[in-house]
Amino acid sequence: MKPLFLDDLHIGQRFVSDEYELTDLEITWFARHFDPQPFHLDAEKAEHTFFRGLAASGWHTAAITMLLLTSSIPLEAGIIGAGGEIAWPRPTRPGDVLHVESQVLEIRPSGTKPDRAIVKFLCETKTRDGEVVQRLHPNLIVFRKHKEQTADL
Amino acid sequence: MKPLFLDDLHIGQRFVSDEYELTDLEITWFARHFDPQPFHLDAEKAEHTFFRGLAASGWHTAAITMLLLTSSIPLEAGIIGAGGEIAWPRPTRPGDVLHVESQVLEIRPSGTKPDRAIVKFLCETKTRDGEVVQRLHPNLIVFRKHKEQTADL
Repeated sequence: MKPLFLDDLHIGQRFVSDEYELTDLEITWFARHFDPQPFHLDAEKAEHTFFRGLAASGWHTAAITMLLLTSSIPLEAGIIGAGGEIAWPRPTRPGDVLHVESQVLEIRPSGTKPDRAIVKFLCETKTRDGEVVQRLHPNLIVFRKHKEQTADL
Repeated sequence: MKPLFLDDLHIGQRFVSDEYELTDLEITWFARHFDPQPFHLDAEKAEHTFFRGLAASGWHTAAITMLLLTSSIPLEAGIIGAGGEIAWPRPTRPGDVLHVESQVLEIRPSGTKPDRAIVKFLCETKTRDGEVVQRLHPNLIVFRKHKEQTADL
């Protein structure tokens, strides 16, 4: 993929990632490291919780989303997030095959640093059935082409 | 810690977590799995990027924050997030010793389900110097004591 600068982005531009299949083993592995709660650790115990079955940690879904973004939005300086909003409309389950659909929502040039802008994306992490398991609105720092590179054109 | 129900929470209530020391090995381990970009993978290459040195993935900081929350906010049904806002005011670096300071900001009883409320927290992930590496405003689903439990009191 051709690396993208700020100059290459426009509102409405879309990116679609590869797929990622989530297994129960990976769900419990992540949970043991970072979110050791019964509904993420043990399928049987999870039945008696809010989730009524094993569910991935939301932060695991977020981490997988990041992996899919790094290979689907080829920003030249990398994907550098300042923050954003995140929501998990339904849990991610063992066997879900996820992909991420992203689009550019807003481009706000920096008031003080002319070489960059904050670009707000919408990144929806979906199952094969099109159900949204995560909706992320990240604010990314995206850089313009350097002057010398522009001069070459 | 005594498990907490919605009935036990009030605005302004505070929780402080244990500490977690982040190593360069763990930063690159997480990055290989979920955020394989040069500034999270390789200290030398990271020098020539926006971060000017190895920095943890923001999602790694988020995952560590979750671990610290699970052991510092003892909600009876577990920590169940519907979503929220996240910001990374500065990168997390190798050697940073993190803890999380949380407080209850808002309690919104559900309009349709009388057994629960959405509770907005502010969770600041800080270094020992008090620098904030992550500011999270999660919306958690918190449940009231069951009727039979209340009747026992």
